[in-house]
Amino acid sequence: MSAIPTLADIEDAARRIAAVAVRTPLIEAHTLGQRLGCRLFVKAEVLQRVGAFKFRGAYNKICQLDAPTRARGVVAYSSGNHAQGVACAAAMLGAPATIVMPTDSPAIKMANTRAYGAEIVTYDRYKESREDIGQHLSSERGLALVKPYDDLDVICGQGTAGLEIAEDMARLGLAPDVFLAPCSGGGLATGCAVALKAKFPNAACYSAEPAGLDDMARSLAFGRRVTNNPAAKSICDALLAPTPGEITFPIAQRHLAGGVSATDEECLKAMKAAFLELKLVAEPGGAVALAAVLSGRLDVKGKCVVVMLSGGNVDPATFKRALDTD
Amino acid sequence: MSAIPTLADIEDAARRIAAVAVRTPLIEAHTLGQRLGCRLFVKAEVLQRVGAFKFRGAYNKICQLDAPTRARGVVAYSSGNHAQGVACAAAMLGAPATIVMPTDSPAIKMANTRAYGAEIVTYDRYKESREDIGQHLSSERGLALVKPYDDLDVICGQGTAGLEIAEDMARLGLAPDVFLAPCSGGGLATGCAVALKAKFPNAACYSAEPAGLDDMARSLAFGRRVTNNPAAKSICDALLAPTPGEITFPIAQRHLAGGVSATDEECLKAMKAAFLELKLVAEPGGAVALAAVLSGRLDVKGKCVVVMLSGGNVDPATFKRALDTD
Repeated sequence: MSAIPTLADIEDAARRIAAVAVRTPLIEAHTLGQRLGCRLFVKAEVLQRVGAFKFRGAYNKICQLDAPTRARGVVAYSSGNHAQGVACAAAMLGAPATIVMPTDSPAIKMANTRAYGAEIVTYDRYKESREDIGQHLSSERGLALVKPYDDLDVICGQGTAGLEIAEDMARLGLAPDVFLAPCSGGGLATGCAVALKAKFPNAACYSAEPAGLDDMARSLAFGRRVTNNPAAKSICDALLAPTPGEITFPIAQRHLAGGVSATDEECLKAMKAAFLELKLVAEPGGAVALAAVLSGRLDVKGKCVVVMLSGGNVDPATFKRALDTD
Repeated sequence: MSAIPTLADIEDAARRIAAVAVRTPLIEAHTLGQRLGCRLFVKAEVLQRVGAFKFRGAYNKICQLDAPTRARGVVAYSSGNHAQGVACAAAMLGAPATIVMPTDSPAIKMANTRAYGAEIVTYDRYKESREDIGQHLSSERGLALVKPYDDLDVICGQGTAGLEIAEDMARLGLAPDVFLAPCSGGGLATGCAVALKAKFPNAACYSAEPAGLDDMARSLAFGRRVTNNPAAKSICDALLAPTPGEITFPIAQRHLAGGVSATDEECLKAMKAAFLELKLVAEPGGAVALAAVLSGRLDVKGKCVVVMLSGGNVDPATFKRALDTD
């Protein structure tokens, strides 16, 4: 595989995960689309195993490890969704999993990760380096490190969601004009863009990030990887990576049209819209692409728009905040 | 069509609605199934147009009305989901819709019905007869009455959801041992049972009702249509029909193995389970079949179980009550 994955790489990944991953539906959001004057489709990746797209990349990575490596086990660092994806995929493939998670991860993500049988090692998100802890555990215990985005197998796994969108659009006789995916390190946005652009070269693909943590958008605008202000915080616990990945950024430069962002309040409102109009549960970061569209950040009038709803692992307390928005 | 619809009748309905209805996914609930020791599948009919299965039957009925009748318009009485189904289908087919709704319908159901362009006439659920008001409007204004369940076209429309379950089960190489559907007048439960039993004669199909409003369960046990205590109330606003339908009951006697029920508290807990484990929004009545299974009312150990999640039109205040359960 070259540094920029191809459609064939993603098709290979799709074959590897076909028997175990959920082929999530692409749902037309009739009422929201009517309100926006566009045709709006939502890729309901909240219905994926573990409630987020992360299962795809984790399984595509771990299933390719050789038997002795799998037997020793895997290690991953994650704010929560990659944690669950790795824990679930590892359990299905008989590999012990150790997950490095920040102490302030949502309770639901920690509990689910533990329920899949993983060992959890916690760290302070604002003081310690999860990469260092992960590397240390990897070399000390001989564990295979499953990175959250800077790995071609992980990127191609996430890209299978984009491939499914392309297939469903073709089946509907439609061509997407605009595609938006939530973006932290960029594995999902770039993987999906590779698949979509291969099938629909005119689709404009965007990353969606929390306001103030829009490192991908600014990096694309500046033409080099820039970093977020370390003091920036967001309710989108899944989207706090400080800078685009080394591997994902060149793919983003090749395939993304740019980046958009949405505020915490807009994400909460998008979660409520998903509740009211789609009957889907989204977490704040999972709703950021929908939030960007609903906030009018992009001109979507008359267009065919596809939005990735990437995760739904949200604690009841946070969901209640979303329900309380106007 | 005879008094008991056949698979062919439901296949006809499926062809009529194919281009407009959502083919909703059948989702395996891995974690809940593991907890119950069974394979558990959920038919996510909350993802249907209008957030409930009711669109199926309404469209199948209205699309068969002749042009002059459609031009005069349709009338329906409903606690909310049938209201939205009729309003939406009528709007798509160019028929004016008048909907008779109880004054205490959930706000979300009234607002959505109005948003589809229907005229709403309200009545007091505990003092007035919605059937009388509907009949009166029908004869006075020459409107076609679209009954919520006692109509073969409506029953066959709802049955298309069961046909899809049968197709998806066959594709998975599985045979359902148990099927449960929420039941008010019985249109959904009987329509789906006709389709499922035709494809899987050994499937045991059950109606699921709110505790204290289990007229179908008791009617099946007694061998004749019995009525609920008029004072009985439930949070399941969609499931308050006082007695099984005249047309649905003989179908239920032929095709249902019996009826189960769940308390309001169990329905709220099932809504929370759907939130946490499935990322789907269910209303209380929509979750009653899942509630009955999660409460251990049926022996499902080692079985293949399919549960209908029939609607997701719930006000935020009620959903917060569900999130607050233990």
